[in-house]
Amino acid sequence: MVADILINTMEKILNMKITFLGTGSSRPTVERSVSCIALTLAQEVLLFDCGEGSQRQMLRTIRQSRIKKIFITHFHGDHYLGIPGLLMTLALNRREAPLDIYGPPGSVRMLKHIFASGYMGLTYDIRIHEVEDEVVDFGDYSVIVFPVEHGIPAVGYCYCEHDRRGRFDIQKAEKLGIRGSLFKQLEKEGEVTLSSGKVCIEDVTGPAEKGKKIVYTGDTRPIDFPESLRAPDILIHEATFIDDADRGDTFHSTVPDACKAAKAIDAGMLILTHINIRYDPDKLQHLASSLFAHAMVAYDYYEVVL
Amino acid sequence: MVADILINTMEKILNMKITFLGTGSSRPTVERSVSCIALTLAQEVLLFDCGEGSQRQMLRTIRQSRIKKIFITHFHGDHYLGIPGLLMTLALNRREAPLDIYGPPGSVRMLKHIFASGYMGLTYDIRIHEVEDEVVDFGDYSVIVFPVEHGIPAVGYCYCEHDRRGRFDIQKAEKLGIRGSLFKQLEKEGEVTLSSGKVCIEDVTGPAEKGKKIVYTGDTRPIDFPESLRAPDILIHEATFIDDADRGDTFHSTVPDACKAAKAIDAGMLILTHINIRYDPDKLQHLASSLFAHAMVAYDYYEVVL
Repeated sequence: MVADILINTMEKILNMKITFLGTGSSRPTVERSVSCIALTLAQEVLLFDCGEGSQRQMLRTIRQSRIKKIFITHFHGDHYLGIPGLLMTLALNRREAPLDIYGPPGSVRMLKHIFASGYMGLTYDIRIHEVEDEVVDFGDYSVIVFPVEHGIPAVGYCYCEHDRRGRFDIQKAEKLGIRGSLFKQLEKEGEVTLSSGKVCIEDVTGPAEKGKKIVYTGDTRPIDFPESLRAPDILIHEATFIDDADRGDTFHSTVPDACKAAKAIDAGMLILTHINIRYDPDKLQHLASSLFAHAMVAYDYYEVVL
Repeated sequence: MVADILINTMEKILNMKITFLGTGSSRPTVERSVSCIALTLAQEVLLFDCGEGSQRQMLRTIRQSRIKKIFITHFHGDHYLGIPGLLMTLALNRREAPLDIYGPPGSVRMLKHIFASGYMGLTYDIRIHEVEDEVVDFGDYSVIVFPVEHGIPAVGYCYCEHDRRGRFDIQKAEKLGIRGSLFKQLEKEGEVTLSSGKVCIEDVTGPAEKGKKIVYTGDTRPIDFPESLRAPDILIHEATFIDDADRGDTFHSTVPDACKAAKAIDAGMLILTHINIRYDPDKLQHLASSLFAHAMVAYDYYEVVL
């Protein structure tokens, strides 16, 4: 029983993995597919963007049947054109569970167009949610949606795991008379009453574990992040250009912009993505590392386990 | 001058190449992308179908800027979902030349939906042509469009190069007094009048060269091909299943169906594509070879030079 609870908790902690399925900018290259990031949790997989070719990128790494939610940042082709093919493949695999797609204002219209463009043969419900500047709660975690600046409706997302109660302190628990099925009762009800008195779950567990926090910008020029995004474990920031001269007046960010943002919100780690074919990734990495200690230029299939 | 003419003729003959960019059925696998075949001619590239991921498949093999026409067989995702991404990439490359897309009845509506599904930023005209049972002439070649049976509007295409005049017989030409700029004049006007009499181009060229003929079925259950498709150099036939039991009542063909069709229309070579992940390709190849001598199971990047 105790072992079960511990294993479940361990699984929850260990099974969070970020997989960069596509890290290129605008169009695929031989080395990079276009934008798609998978967040693998214990019970499901969340996708952030799903550019053309993403389903094929998943074949060696992601169990497609576990995808429950797709979060689209904006409707440039390199961020959403992989959706219809993925949805058709899920239907060929006889999926029955509904699938939720979140995206900026206009998403319902955009996605209805793409679903009407061919004979899709879907076998399950697609639920489309337009989001812009809000917090969506999913039980174990919430997703903060924040507007970004990309010249068209566009949002970023922050995966925000709720804090968890600390682990059971077995010695302390046994000293207070908690054993066997009483652990389960404590887990469920938060307290049990023994002949020796009432025991609350907080009496026999260690300090609460802080939930993980991951911010993904999608495409944007530099913005001031809302206070709610402060101190993420990881900031995934687009870095399409190396400097202002290259960026010009496009609605994109540079490597220095991304590093500045990571400092401003006190990110534990910065991962740069949406990498432009014109640059040598080593050069980008060198620049990023010189500006922010824990910076990493993503590549396809790069994984981070949290 | 003579050399120029010969080289041009040689180029025309040698520069026809079929490249199988995607040979899988329904969904991509690690080994196979979904349907896309490029026909590289001297002056342009024609695409037959363009499933998701096709633009990335092209990166090592096809000059995308040379694509002038796309022929779609039907609107199942694995045959057309690569179009919007490819078109956007051409726009990023600042294409100005119009692009023609041919497809079965309903294509205008389908393609308009997909173009309305995001911010495409196209820089050139897309001209959509609905075709079903007709011959479209393009000057050097024509394309025969023939209906197939796939449960939804679907067509096959036959690339049909026009016969070409024979090559110059230099010795014969010189004997009749043709030299220098007279070759050019003959090429342009078909005849020249010399003091010794009139010389027609047929007098100094070898036998006409038969134009190449390539038939592509797209997805279909077995059909009787029209007489106009007889004796192609190559028949590219779908072979989604290995036998009738596996095929069931789907609108697809089997390896024996494809071989039977190749015999019926007297094809020079049969290439099987739309290969189902459930089969060992070696087993399919063995079966095909036993039923039709010049049969080949396609794989991604397989090329045929004609």
